[in-house]
Amino acid sequence: MSEKIEALRELLKENELDGFIIPHNDEYQEEITAPCAERLKWLTGFTGSAGVAVVLRQKAFLLIDGRYTLQARTEVSKDDFTILDIYQNPLSSIIEKEMKITGRLGYDPFLHTVRQVSDLKKACYNVGCYLVAFRSNPIDIIWKDRPKPPSSPIMLLEDKFSGLSRDEKIKKIAKDLQEHKEDALVIESPSSICWLLNIRGNDIPYTPLAHSYAIVHKSSSVDWFIASERISDEVRKELGDKIRILPPAIFAPELARLAKKRANVRVDAKRSSAWLESTLAKSGGKITPGTDPCVLLKSQKNTTEQEGARKAHIRDGVAVCNFLYWLEREGVSKGINEYEAAAKLESFRRKGEFFHDLSFATISAVGANAAIVHYTPEPGKSARLNPKEVYLVDSGANYLDGTTDITRTVAFDKVPYIVRKRFTQVLKGHIALASCIFPKGTYGYQLDVLARQYLWADGVDYAHSTGHGIGSFLGVHENPPSISYAKDSLPLLPGMILSNEPGYYKEGEFGIRCENVMLVTAAPQNDNAEQEMLAFETLTKVPFARDLIEVGMLSDTEKEWLNRYHQDVYATLAPLLEPAVSSWLKEATLEI
Amino acid sequence: MSEKIEALRELLKENELDGFIIPHNDEYQEEITAPCAERLKWLTGFTGSAGVAVVLRQKAFLLIDGRYTLQARTEVSKDDFTILDIYQNPLSSIIEKEMKITGRLGYDPFLHTVRQVSDLKKACYNVGCYLVAFRSNPIDIIWKDRPKPPSSPIMLLEDKFSGLSRDEKIKKIAKDLQEHKEDALVIESPSSICWLLNIRGNDIPYTPLAHSYAIVHKSSSVDWFIASERISDEVRKELGDKIRILPPAIFAPELARLAKKRANVRVDAKRSSAWLESTLAKSGGKITPGTDPCVLLKSQKNTTEQEGARKAHIRDGVAVCNFLYWLEREGVSKGINEYEAAAKLESFRRKGEFFHDLSFATISAVGANAAIVHYTPEPGKSARLNPKEVYLVDSGANYLDGTTDITRTVAFDKVPYIVRKRFTQVLKGHIALASCIFPKGTYGYQLDVLARQYLWADGVDYAHSTGHGIGSFLGVHENPPSISYAKDSLPLLPGMILSNEPGYYKEGEFGIRCENVMLVTAAPQNDNAEQEMLAFETLTKVPFARDLIEVGMLSDTEKEWLNRYHQDVYATLAPLLEPAVSSWLKEATLEI
Repeated sequence: MSEKIEALRELLKENELDGFIIPHNDEYQEEITAPCAERLKWLTGFTGSAGVAVVLRQKAFLLIDGRYTLQARTEVSKDDFTILDIYQNPLSSIIEKEMKITGRLGYDPFLHTVRQVSDLKKACYNVGCYLVAFRSNPIDIIWKDRPKPPSSPIMLLEDKFSGLSRDEKIKKIAKDLQEHKEDALVIESPSSICWLLNIRGNDIPYTPLAHSYAIVHKSSSVDWFIASERISDEVRKELGDKIRILPPAIFAPELARLAKKRANVRVDAKRSSAWLESTLAKSGGKITPGTDPCVLLKSQKNTTEQEGARKAHIRDGVAVCNFLYWLEREGVSKGINEYEAAAKLESFRRKGEFFHDLSFATISAVGANAAIVHYTPEPGKSARLNPKEVYLVDSGANYLDGTTDITRTVAFDKVPYIVRKRFTQVLKGHIALASCIFPKGTYGYQLDVLARQYLWADGVDYAHSTGHGIGSFLGVHENPPSISYAKDSLPLLPGMILSNEPGYYKEGEFGIRCENVMLVTAAPQNDNAEQEMLAFETLTKVPFARDLIEVGMLSDTEKEWLNRYHQDVYATLAPLLEPAVSSWLKEATLEI
Repeated sequence: MSEKIEALRELLKENELDGFIIPHNDEYQEEITAPCAERLKWLTGFTGSAGVAVVLRQKAFLLIDGRYTLQARTEVSKDDFTILDIYQNPLSSIIEKEMKITGRLGYDPFLHTVRQVSDLKKACYNVGCYLVAFRSNPIDIIWKDRPKPPSSPIMLLEDKFSGLSRDEKIKKIAKDLQEHKEDALVIESPSSICWLLNIRGNDIPYTPLAHSYAIVHKSSSVDWFIASERISDEVRKELGDKIRILPPAIFAPELARLAKKRANVRVDAKRSSAWLESTLAKSGGKITPGTDPCVLLKSQKNTTEQEGARKAHIRDGVAVCNFLYWLEREGVSKGINEYEAAAKLESFRRKGEFFHDLSFATISAVGANAAIVHYTPEPGKSARLNPKEVYLVDSGANYLDGTTDITRTVAFDKVPYIVRKRFTQVLKGHIALASCIFPKGTYGYQLDVLARQYLWADGVDYAHSTGHGIGSFLGVHENPPSISYAKDSLPLLPGMILSNEPGYYKEGEFGIRCENVMLVTAAPQNDNAEQEMLAFETLTKVPFARDLIEVGMLSDTEKEWLNRYHQDVYATLAPLLEPAVSSWLKEATLEI
């Protein structure tokens, strides 16, 4: 048994707890966390972007989703943790199976939403055990060299990128509060605050977030709880008087003060921490359940953001084409490895205008490594690219005007029929989703099957969502929207940006994924239409590997879609590329 | 204002109520009700199979779904009722908009499930008004000539049809109770009781149900509350000692007695009446929320029921083919009307072995009438079939060995391109669903888009579900399963039988629906398959109208499916038909 678990169990014993829950997310309910919040990784070794551990006196469980099945097996000690699929074994089922009547299960109220705690309470109620809010996270107590919380300087995002000034945004929220007869909205979500105030930071890798808290008042004034040393004079001046910069240490007292005034405060049960709710409740606050209005506003990109996304994807397409050309001409024959390939791709991206950073750690995977859905190459342990195996690269960048995310699977020589067949099935699903038209009001889950149908027809599937929402110079995973099995809370709406990424993974052999980013738009004009219909506009501009396609498996409609897409990629990128790359692209986009 | 509403409002006033809810369903939560329970129809004139009215002091609302939009407009007085779509305006939203603080809204606790009342309570809580259980339904008080409740004689269903004896079924339920440490299960659902006891009745039109109540004890004994005059000596003897026949009048006292013994009673919140729960609760009963286990067992047909369904569909196919042949040769030229056509079809069905009754009122509709999704022809007001308009016939029968449901849309001469285009889009959707393969665990809502995609691509849709579950010599609508927008509680499982019925409706012009019945089975053997896959076996055996198909719109795969289906229909039915009909079928199933 690891020393860490031993120390944790010792602490549980001292505090008369029978177990403790350690989720992946941080106190902002974000999936990408600062190093100081990587408690799950510290305890278990698991580096995935979602998951939760429950450590009991005798047993310990790690619950993860299908993307991480293979990865968790190599990262996590089986002696310490039983690894289970979180959909088949949700936290509630573990509680119901493992906890005993009158047992005490601890949790950190900062790390769980109001809704999650309500579900946990239900499970505990069913068993007859107690759920204990434990303010000092025991991991923080035993984690001796825990890093300090981040404190990056705040940068402003110009209106030419955001499309809407912070004054206009704050007024929208204030109006919404007034309409609901509410006095204030408390926001813990960094992406909501960044969107609202048109600011960004670098507190965590890849996503340009600043960790902070905010209270928006119905009067349009904002209390922003953030260390003042993070705000330059220039930024402070630009923010103006209506945004009060307050020290984070007085966030709790300010909440209490608000509650004591009997203010009517909106709390979003799916996004606010259980700590927030209990802090307001303790001081007699009137809590109105509602939704953080930034979430919907942020998800429906305005025309400036849409135009920015189009441009960012062209720049990104140039970088990826330069990379693919280089790979074919030099990279593979030089025998570069996965890590070096990722670095090379990054160097191409860095040349793009408005480049800020990558939007996530590049997945650069050869052969069997690509069957690990979220594989990240490490310098010392990377496989070499070679003509015998397909290479999968899933990468993206944050530009000031938009966030990108693209996966291409490519081959450098003939590959076995089964690989081409699977690639074509994945691509057919991708095309079916990309080209579908659907009534306004349709949910992502209704479209999911379109991407899976051809794999299903052959008895196989992929164990991840088909698509996730994407921010505008924000998180590469942004919710809503989504396209998956699970029912979402909002239908697909014009201006939403999301990925289309079916895949196929054969453990120990190969992995395939075809990913483009799409914008939800009005469907093309059709005089027959009897209701408002929506469609997707594909933003990503990079060819799919023609030599991986079994042309005979494509229908005429699919061929048309692919040829039209490739023509558009060529027409858009060719003028922006060096002549050699441009001719490479011409060949890569030839009609099939 | 109608006298009925006036009388109802008078009664509300006397009882200090500000409104009353009148649902379509009866006290067994069934959608097909006995005449005595047709309160909604009596009050509003609306004859649809689903809906709910709310009569307030000044206003009154009728909430219905998309199938009934056109029908309700002709049946219901606009002066009396505001007609709204129930999905866009659920009952809870009406309460939240129309009720006032401290207002009193009445409901009949027999006519709402525990779950429904819990939702109503939530809406009333949001408003601050009261929800008042009102035991004497006010409609029953003002409805002077209300018919008597039905009391048809009970018939036994032989094991050769049910595939499982009543003893075996009861033992399964008793074992389930024992495993859940429960003492008894109370069943109010007539279809559950009919399935469990292998009995049938004729209390309502079309569905062979007997209205009664039952308590199943963990000891495998059953208390069956049903008037003894309905049970012949022969039936009584066959049922044996373990099924106690008790008068319905002592159902409530028996529940109270059970509750007073502190028995642990399972109640299904989605199917049990609010009256049942409160009766148990009042006497101190220990209620365990759970599921009526008959529901799942009934939905997964055993091999005897599956084989029965196959045979019943062959017999039904013979009847429908004889009818379609007769229509083409004689019916249309004779100028028969919709009502006569339905009667003729029934006469063909009546000749089939094991025929019991139709499974629902035949929808026989010419031209614009077919745009009314649930149109039923009346003797005096029926349109004549003619070569200029398409004819839609949606019909089915209950045979002792299975229940059928089929829609065919046919033409007797050239019809406009738009009709053929829509027919082909509907048929393409039908084929996509019929031929799909999906992983075990897939829900109906995940597959719904397959049937809609080609209509959506052209900007149109249909305002009803794609498929509903079907009983085994029971209800033609049986839940689960379903294939629709809405998320269902259970995935599709082997042995489930359901309809596949996309359509298209152009108000004032024409209507199209292509409906077959399908059985969920294991997917065909595939050595590549990496997980357990399911597929549909089409049970219905009747050709689709070849002259309504725009062949150029079909893909090769779709043509293959259709040709294979038609070959199978011909091979199966030809030997069972008169030579003239057989040659007609040969032509109707020619390769396209």
